[in-house]
Amino acid sequence: MKTLEWNTLFGEGARRIQASTIRELLKLTQRPGVLSFAGGLPAPELFPKEEAAHKAAAILKEKGEVALQYGPTEGYFPLRAWIADWLGVSPEEVLITTGSQQALDLLGKVFLDEESPVLLEAPSYMGAIQAFRAYGPRFLTVPAGEKGPDLDALEEVLKRERPRFLYLIPSFQNPSGGLIPLKARERLLEMIMEGGLVVVEDDAYRELYFGDGRLPSLFELSREAGYPGVVYLSSFSKILSPGLRVAFAVAHLEAILKLTQAKQGVDLHTPVLNQMLVHALVQEDFPERLERIRATYRAKAKAMLEALDREMPEGVRYTRPQGGMFVWMELPQGLSAEALFREAIAQDVAFVPGGPFFAGGGGENTLRLSYATLGPEGIAEGVRRLAKALKGLLALA
Amino acid sequence: MKTLEWNTLFGEGARRIQASTIRELLKLTQRPGVLSFAGGLPAPELFPKEEAAHKAAAILKEKGEVALQYGPTEGYFPLRAWIADWLGVSPEEVLITTGSQQALDLLGKVFLDEESPVLLEAPSYMGAIQAFRAYGPRFLTVPAGEKGPDLDALEEVLKRERPRFLYLIPSFQNPSGGLIPLKARERLLEMIMEGGLVVVEDDAYRELYFGDGRLPSLFELSREAGYPGVVYLSSFSKILSPGLRVAFAVAHLEAILKLTQAKQGVDLHTPVLNQMLVHALVQEDFPERLERIRATYRAKAKAMLEALDREMPEGVRYTRPQGGMFVWMELPQGLSAEALFREAIAQDVAFVPGGPFFAGGGGENTLRLSYATLGPEGIAEGVRRLAKALKGLLALA
Repeated sequence: MKTLEWNTLFGEGARRIQASTIRELLKLTQRPGVLSFAGGLPAPELFPKEEAAHKAAAILKEKGEVALQYGPTEGYFPLRAWIADWLGVSPEEVLITTGSQQALDLLGKVFLDEESPVLLEAPSYMGAIQAFRAYGPRFLTVPAGEKGPDLDALEEVLKRERPRFLYLIPSFQNPSGGLIPLKARERLLEMIMEGGLVVVEDDAYRELYFGDGRLPSLFELSREAGYPGVVYLSSFSKILSPGLRVAFAVAHLEAILKLTQAKQGVDLHTPVLNQMLVHALVQEDFPERLERIRATYRAKAKAMLEALDREMPEGVRYTRPQGGMFVWMELPQGLSAEALFREAIAQDVAFVPGGPFFAGGGGENTLRLSYATLGPEGIAEGVRRLAKALKGLLALA
Repeated sequence: MKTLEWNTLFGEGARRIQASTIRELLKLTQRPGVLSFAGGLPAPELFPKEEAAHKAAAILKEKGEVALQYGPTEGYFPLRAWIADWLGVSPEEVLITTGSQQALDLLGKVFLDEESPVLLEAPSYMGAIQAFRAYGPRFLTVPAGEKGPDLDALEEVLKRERPRFLYLIPSFQNPSGGLIPLKARERLLEMIMEGGLVVVEDDAYRELYFGDGRLPSLFELSREAGYPGVVYLSSFSKILSPGLRVAFAVAHLEAILKLTQAKQGVDLHTPVLNQMLVHALVQEDFPERLERIRATYRAKAKAMLEALDREMPEGVRYTRPQGGMFVWMELPQGLSAEALFREAIAQDVAFVPGGPFFAGGGGENTLRLSYATLGPEGIAEGVRRLAKALKGLLALA
């Protein structure tokens, strides 16, 4: 076979697209016997297998000509209308996307050029960093913790810079689990309105609260305030199934139109069967389903926190999530989460080192633990193994 | 509501993303009563509704934890392995994409920068032009007809230019229906190998031949010649269902790796259920299904050609397709296909004006007729209406 130097054939842009070293590491977590806190994989016991089987069969038999044919780029209208009704917007403001990951890519395509400033929390969702990075922007970051981004730091950045958009996950942030309190949401919105800025609010975990209810989203607050600059993203991945890849963006009509034009060029439309299936599944017992999901994750979070409180050595800090799927951990300064990862894998337990969640670097002593996938016993045993790995590493240090 | 000037908030890149005027026109074709030759919508009577209902239910019941969970970016391994076996390649060389449209976007992302030269046939697939245009390349074109691209013209272009890739649809081209003969494929491959160039071969219509069999693809010829530079695209859209959005790219491992990295950032993975469903559907009677599909389109093409031969006035030229879904028509010079479109819509018949298929402009007197969707009687009646519209326009001219 003749040899081609593919790297010389790719464009400049291809250099920005790299295999995440972290994703390579994560392949190790699929080894049999490994208890994994790594992937943010929803609890498989919550998947609506039987209902989906029944509904999918009915859809294909009765409306197969629609489910199997090309569909509109905007999405399957009854699903858009259902979402609009759920969120209190109009169906025309809803665009169905092939997972929220696609919405992130479309936002990059529409808003970002090379060297465009874009503002993220540090840490922020790795998949967003990856999607945006392909467009070559300049990342601005502000530190974020249990109460969301540092708003004083954000105010300082906004004095100097005008980011194309702010990408924020106000509720149960991935990876930090942070939740922006209501007052801070209001202050944030004021800053955004004053600057006439665009915010992308990623609300994938909106329904996974452990307390009495949801805080209003930035999007809801912005609508109340008559401000059209918040693009709202959410998904059925955490409440029905991630494998179906059905998510949605909600925004001002002009933004939705441009995102729709961009989507036409990237996959024509999200699979019709999947949209019809989601639409059928949300018709029945949806509030009860959400309650069941919240109860499950609440119990799993409790199991993890109890195990961490029992097992973790001094000097290790971790969050106590009020919702979502993640505990965020800080090791004592100087200790490397990647080094711990190698020790942990030897003990058959896995997590995600925190470094790649920082678009501007740093975070080497941080890590993300997902309690979403394993059962309570697996969680307890995994934390035991993790503590053992950590104590081994501390003994060496 | 406060007003934002969205056009000033979007990036430079967003200007390259436009609503195709043609797609706006096409909305008119969905009016009740319109007989449409416009969309390349596969014949709905060929959809495997019952089998899909049965298989989808079985998959969701028995393997719901896999079908509904996140999956690998590369694709569902059993489907990759099946495709590899079908095409005589290795599974690692196969990437599952969310429709071929996604493969086109990924190729743009990986190979094209602003002002990169990229070579297309004129006319070529509108969706490819749209996908590539988002990356701001410089389009080079060579005229193409019933026997594919003009290879002398191509040779001339390649003396002056080094395109990042050549995008070709060698078999039953969309929109022209063209088929590159074997000798020309061999000459083309020689030119490509001599230049060390990359070819993207879009073979969406590979199975829709009306004669005795398929010509070898450029990809197959390149493998025989030991040349790794052909990226092969095909899809289950025309042989099972477009609505499922399951397609694939096959290429040298280094190209597949880079495309996979790019795909991770754009939708994480193609829906798992859809891949499992396609895998289940190709296990049974697949050769018989392909025969049935070929027979159906062969009959539809015949119905359209008989009607055209009967109804069309002098001076109108059209192709006699040997496969695929399209007849390509040239009106007498000076006659506008868009003007005809307006007349035709008034007569309740629709088609796609050819202009947008020409990346470099031109083709105003051309149009595409799809015989895929309607039955023989609808085709005959549609052609009658089209002839009436055309005669009306000629009477005015």
